[in-house]
Amino acid sequence: MDTFKEITNTIHGIDNNIMQKAKQRLRDQAKPAGSLGMLEDVSARLAGIAGTLDVRLNNKVIVTCAGDHGIVDEGVTLFPQEVTQQMVYNFVNAGASINVLARHAGASVKVADLGVNHDFDPALPIFHKKVCKGTANFAKEPAMTRNEAIKSVKNGIDIVDELFKEGPVDILGTGDMGIANTTPSSAIIAAFSGIQVQELTGRGTGIDDDMLKHKIRVIEDALKMHQPDLTDPIDVLSKVGGAEIGGLAGLVIGAAMHGIPVVCDGLISTAGALIGCELVPEAKEYLFASHRSLEAGHRFMHERLGLEPLLDLRMRLGEGTGSALAMELLDASTRVLCDIKTFEEVAIKDKNL
Amino acid sequence: MDTFKEITNTIHGIDNNIMQKAKQRLRDQAKPAGSLGMLEDVSARLAGIAGTLDVRLNNKVIVTCAGDHGIVDEGVTLFPQEVTQQMVYNFVNAGASINVLARHAGASVKVADLGVNHDFDPALPIFHKKVCKGTANFAKEPAMTRNEAIKSVKNGIDIVDELFKEGPVDILGTGDMGIANTTPSSAIIAAFSGIQVQELTGRGTGIDDDMLKHKIRVIEDALKMHQPDLTDPIDVLSKVGGAEIGGLAGLVIGAAMHGIPVVCDGLISTAGALIGCELVPEAKEYLFASHRSLEAGHRFMHERLGLEPLLDLRMRLGEGTGSALAMELLDASTRVLCDIKTFEEVAIKDKNL
Repeated sequence: MDTFKEITNTIHGIDNNIMQKAKQRLRDQAKPAGSLGMLEDVSARLAGIAGTLDVRLNNKVIVTCAGDHGIVDEGVTLFPQEVTQQMVYNFVNAGASINVLARHAGASVKVADLGVNHDFDPALPIFHKKVCKGTANFAKEPAMTRNEAIKSVKNGIDIVDELFKEGPVDILGTGDMGIANTTPSSAIIAAFSGIQVQELTGRGTGIDDDMLKHKIRVIEDALKMHQPDLTDPIDVLSKVGGAEIGGLAGLVIGAAMHGIPVVCDGLISTAGALIGCELVPEAKEYLFASHRSLEAGHRFMHERLGLEPLLDLRMRLGEGTGSALAMELLDASTRVLCDIKTFEEVAIKDKNL
Repeated sequence: MDTFKEITNTIHGIDNNIMQKAKQRLRDQAKPAGSLGMLEDVSARLAGIAGTLDVRLNNKVIVTCAGDHGIVDEGVTLFPQEVTQQMVYNFVNAGASINVLARHAGASVKVADLGVNHDFDPALPIFHKKVCKGTANFAKEPAMTRNEAIKSVKNGIDIVDELFKEGPVDILGTGDMGIANTTPSSAIIAAFSGIQVQELTGRGTGIDDDMLKHKIRVIEDALKMHQPDLTDPIDVLSKVGGAEIGGLAGLVIGAAMHGIPVVCDGLISTAGALIGCELVPEAKEYLFASHRSLEAGHRFMHERLGLEPLLDLRMRLGEGTGSALAMELLDASTRVLCDIKTFEEVAIKDKNL
């Protein structure tokens, strides 16, 4: 835990002076004040992060973290565990949803194995950051050891460091792949919020009423058994979390350490962001919520993080698909800030007509 | 009115067979069924409109219709009428919000004068489609004559015809400029819906409580005086509408006639779309709602049109800014449909690994 306290001190924080200048420019533009709504809000914060009004999000990277979950044995999902590894190959072959939407957004996709129950060829072009071959079944024992949980977060931070060694990154998006991973994600927000499990547990890939009831019971029982300590995010992550969720927490912390914005995707990515911001609260300033998913627990995560998602398209796919779409809006917001002329600039132009 | 009945017969309607095929492909893709939510819904409809699963929205055009409003004399807005013409020049000089967001979306912007109270140089590169130099003050007399109202709609249709003569258009976006034009727009949805004026009247460019109360009273009194016939959309348009609103109705009808999708922007553009679809109900199949604006009346328009907006970013700018942003999502949805691999396609690929 000391590691994360030290990190807190290394985060610069965003430039409030630039953010105020951005807000002033937005007010001065030839349009009714505030009329571009959330685009204006996010553009000012992006300027504060970049330390300049001339924000450029040219280098966009989405990191999709994959991991397996022992809780799958409890019958909480429709798909078999093997789908996680198959989808990793699908990502590498660029045929998956995230590849398609990232391409549209002009973002590259990087895949990271944090805890898939499969041995990937070391030559496979992914981040090899495995901390376990799938978590343990947290209906029976803690999902991970405390050390595995810490390592999963550190591995996420390392991924960002390695990305920066490869080249410039202007914005990071997070995404997930892991069969059964809405179950730990719902457990995490239940642990932090204290809200009834049935209020924040959804159908994941599309389970029916009976399976949903069962999934709720599994989470309730696990929380009773493990009694995760909500003042200790690593305790929550290790007992009812997952390796990719730890990796996703690390990505958010890493982005803040490098002073770049990070946009989180759906329920699982936001669970990771929540762990990240509970560990390093300063990371929150760099974090954007891409969308509100159909998963019931998602809005409680956004509430706890104090974030308003940009999109609400009834999506529930994960992989980073929401991050990709939101990156286009964030990119558009930077053009709003820089390129829309002020009343003064327009007046000057009018004289030249 | 006969003109519009004839048009109805010329609209082909969308290809339901292709739309079903699109839905089947979306279900077969390697992702939980329906997990891309609204993106899947709109992509299937875009395929039905295009008559192919391989939808390409390469040529995007936004038409911003401008007009002035005599109702400005009643003190319903913060800006003077001259701003309408100034903003037309700003659009032509590419410094306005719509230019910036259209550029981001890869769309071109065309400006049309339907009723600005200013004589533009005929050489100015805009569509010169003026039907009046500003409408009359509808607190005292009908905004337009019946002939002017019909002409404004026809001019909108003509604009689409002329665009197609210039080159291919794959998707059309609508936008508006006109000081005081939230007032006629609110009056139009009040007339059609019968909902209390205070329920659906908003602050436009940002008026205070007193001005809002006054604006509501102005609309209520005008509706009482004119008693627009809601079974006769031209009657509504002429009595409490505006020339650019008629043009926006024509754009929607014209897009349907040419068999291309059309996305409408905020309160004013949607008021135009409403008039268009009341005149030619078949046009509705081609229509997409870009966003839900802060204006109270907007959601009642969407309800009447049976449309769910893609975005909800607290915007209230107009010009076509919402259309530009939504075009990026619609474009992304076409990539979803075409490019995400099916489970079968992925399995084949796995064998080749």
